[in-house]
Amino acid sequence: MGETRWLDEQEALVWRKYRDLKRELQAAQDRQLARDSGLSGADYALLAPLSEAPGSVLRARDLGLEVGWERSRLSHQVRRMEQRGLVAREACEDDARGSMIRLTDAGRAAIVEAAPRHVDVVRKYFFDPLSKDEVKALGILFDRILDTLAED
Amino acid sequence: MGETRWLDEQEALVWRKYRDLKRELQAAQDRQLARDSGLSGADYALLAPLSEAPGSVLRARDLGLEVGWERSRLSHQVRRMEQRGLVAREACEDDARGSMIRLTDAGRAAIVEAAPRHVDVVRKYFFDPLSKDEVKALGILFDRILDTLAED
Repeated sequence: MGETRWLDEQEALVWRKYRDLKRELQAAQDRQLARDSGLSGADYALLAPLSEAPGSVLRARDLGLEVGWERSRLSHQVRRMEQRGLVAREACEDDARGSMIRLTDAGRAAIVEAAPRHVDVVRKYFFDPLSKDEVKALGILFDRILDTLAED
Repeated sequence: MGETRWLDEQEALVWRKYRDLKRELQAAQDRQLARDSGLSGADYALLAPLSEAPGSVLRARDLGLEVGWERSRLSHQVRRMEQRGLVAREACEDDARGSMIRLTDAGRAAIVEAAPRHVDVVRKYFFDPLSKDEVKALGILFDRILDTLAED
């Protein structure tokens, strides 16, 4: 284990910026959704991967991995969306204890309606402030971090 | 409203990297916590700002803003942590409908115990892959995005 290598001043600053960016960008996206659609950020987070999945259905476990949520949060959120008719839960054929989450027609209509203005927010806050070269540079820095994460 | 300006190929790629990084880094942090402490990522997310707050107490509303969670998620998580003795909920003196969340001694002990290895994960995955100049460059790009978010 050894001694803890705490972050230096510059690193602590950049780490705080990362966390601020994550939070403020999510807040901007949530505000846009609340204003323009009947969806929350959590609704959108689940609808997006379901809408891109083959057959519009995913195992609950894979959906949880996709969004990176703990199981209790996922099942709580799925239950609320099921009550509103956005998704349906089905038994999983190959795993008696697993379940499948399916996007309903109403769920698809909701995300199709919400997506264009959701993209506008990403563009406005994340990409418009950066030049093409800076977008590329950001991608390279993210890759460096992602490669280290993938090694484990 | 005008026409939607969809993301171009490079932007879509960088946006996916950003979401992957967010998710994989959080997953690495959650795994470390699960392995080394009795805390979840959601526990840690609430304990950290409480431990840094004056008097170790925050209004529930301010704690929610700090982590960027919706109200139902916050109250669900606080309830679970209250049951485990990590936080205590108190009435808010100036706002009859508001509540205050206080870090307990057990909550403080839990985060003091967990923090060093939590920092190790941030260092290993986020900072070790980058040079000092790259950390600085990343901070500048984040600032550009944060400035635009702050304008609204």
